[in-house]
Amino acid sequence: MKVKGKNYQTIWFEKGAVKMIDQNKLPFSFEIISCSTWEETAEAIKYMTVRGAGAIGAAAGFAMAQAFLQAPDPGRDIYLQDAIAAIEATRPTARDLFYATRKVFASTSARDAVNQALQIAADNANEGKRIGEIGSQLISDGMGILTHCNAGWLAFVDHGSALSPLYEARRKGRNFTVFVDETRPRCQGSKLTAWELGNEKIPHHIITDNAAGFFMQQGKIQMAITGADRVAANGDVVNKIGTLEKAVLAKAFNIPFYVAVPLSTFDPDAKTGNDIQIEYRTPDEVLKLSGYSEKGIIEEVSIAAPGSDALNPAFDMTPAAYITGLITSKGIIKASQGTISALFSNKD
Amino acid sequence: MKVKGKNYQTIWFEKGAVKMIDQNKLPFSFEIISCSTWEETAEAIKYMTVRGAGAIGAAAGFAMAQAFLQAPDPGRDIYLQDAIAAIEATRPTARDLFYATRKVFASTSARDAVNQALQIAADNANEGKRIGEIGSQLISDGMGILTHCNAGWLAFVDHGSALSPLYEARRKGRNFTVFVDETRPRCQGSKLTAWELGNEKIPHHIITDNAAGFFMQQGKIQMAITGADRVAANGDVVNKIGTLEKAVLAKAFNIPFYVAVPLSTFDPDAKTGNDIQIEYRTPDEVLKLSGYSEKGIIEEVSIAAPGSDALNPAFDMTPAAYITGLITSKGIIKASQGTISALFSNKD
Repeated sequence: MKVKGKNYQTIWFEKGAVKMIDQNKLPFSFEIISCSTWEETAEAIKYMTVRGAGAIGAAAGFAMAQAFLQAPDPGRDIYLQDAIAAIEATRPTARDLFYATRKVFASTSARDAVNQALQIAADNANEGKRIGEIGSQLISDGMGILTHCNAGWLAFVDHGSALSPLYEARRKGRNFTVFVDETRPRCQGSKLTAWELGNEKIPHHIITDNAAGFFMQQGKIQMAITGADRVAANGDVVNKIGTLEKAVLAKAFNIPFYVAVPLSTFDPDAKTGNDIQIEYRTPDEVLKLSGYSEKGIIEEVSIAAPGSDALNPAFDMTPAAYITGLITSKGIIKASQGTISALFSNKD
Repeated sequence: MKVKGKNYQTIWFEKGAVKMIDQNKLPFSFEIISCSTWEETAEAIKYMTVRGAGAIGAAAGFAMAQAFLQAPDPGRDIYLQDAIAAIEATRPTARDLFYATRKVFASTSARDAVNQALQIAADNANEGKRIGEIGSQLISDGMGILTHCNAGWLAFVDHGSALSPLYEARRKGRNFTVFVDETRPRCQGSKLTAWELGNEKIPHHIITDNAAGFFMQQGKIQMAITGADRVAANGDVVNKIGTLEKAVLAKAFNIPFYVAVPLSTFDPDAKTGNDIQIEYRTPDEVLKLSGYSEKGIIEEVSIAAPGSDALNPAFDMTPAAYITGLITSKGIIKASQGTISALFSNKD
């Protein structure tokens, strides 16, 4: 997608180095960092320089390919074993990461490893594009569309999941307005989604997470669309904290609620959403907030009464009954066991 | 209520000056400011040095009384007309403000005006105490109780509305846990409600506004209680942005949702909630956030993509159908036209 008129991907491979947009600096400064070793790429995953399921997967694949390039001739196997263990320890919950490391690890040569990693990244970008083409059918002129968190191109190699249909609809000339939940605690909505939409010149308003219900009641929102971190076999969706609230509100106000996902997000091992463990993150994400100060530096401020604690579940589970449809690269399907299993039995 | 072991009210009148706790400094520092003219008191309302329906009402009453004290002898009527217009322009949504300005405006002398204003403040504190006694019946051991924004003693002259039943239940020795919505954009939950609960040693957790649905789904919340800025004749409630979201969620998860209000919050001129104007505040409240920096000063940081705008409705309207009961100083009633009109026909 475009940044200042120039096309970028979130992450790419160039002469043995992994290049990526530094997402810890966005939206306040746009910087590309270059990781010349697998160790540096693994660090970038760990410290969330790159984030989002698809982008993490691509980064892990590239890191593994770099390990092949760096491996000494005698002792290659032990070296690669150590590398995969270290890469997989960076973000232990991201499904796409393990898919990528294992696929590249099985390569027969360094050249093969690089090609595998490039293919993983290309597949991710292409699937985002396809989700956009399919999902864009749902978007018509004059719509107000709610989105939560960031499931845009920054969370993937390119295009994104939830935002890809908006980009495609925009390319087709449709006019609509996006309501961007800021998405506390980490504000990926106001920081990343708003930045992406601004670059694509898509009209949008940032709102607090408290205000979506108000705009639904006022008739300003005709559709909600989010991404997902995992989809269970019965169609229950685990996604960023607050997704459940928006889905319940959408149902109360008769607004369709869609979830856009690549196929890698479906988890056949989870029968229902209750089988998926919800990660709690540090209370500091709630009690403090980092932003750009008047001095032009990123600073952290406390926004809570000293001595009070916080509970910080990072995700929640939205039951399938609240979901109007899942937008996939193979079509828009009902969130149910039958349709999901049919999707995979037809897999080519 | 107590601060560091000493009793305080939120606002009081002392030798012609209005003294108040500076709520823009809380919870990071506890400071009393003194407004010696009605213009200073009006500024304090406008810039939210004092906030919350009841406290605003008391402040507006005191400001009006100060105008009587400052009014020149010839030209008194025009002076007071100008003053009431300016005071009423500070915050358009709070019903208590208009109740207070008009009651004091009708005074026959400066002495009468001061007495009227003192009475409004005393009534507010007493009514908060009574709401606490009545509402505390609803609270039993082991409950998880959700509250939104700050309807504690800081929002009134003393005791509060939504939090008063918790204080009374605590005095009666009941053990319960409060889930405190941080309440973006201004974080009155994490800043003020958490501070109040901490002072009273009531166990509580701050959560993001996104997380209440999660804890309801997990069975951790047995009751929700908020205040209100206005209640329409049919029982619709206008309160802090996000209240509607919590009420819709409470209904979806079968959790009782109570609204605690003094009688002055009922607005007979509003037939339904749709008759009440919703104030939009500056987008900067959403795009920026102020907190306490490591340097020990209050700093503001940007938390949104530069160039993106925000929409910032300060309140929303919760239809009566979502409200289990209104906790008033005359009993807990259903939120309906019949019960509300009966409440006032019995008014002594």
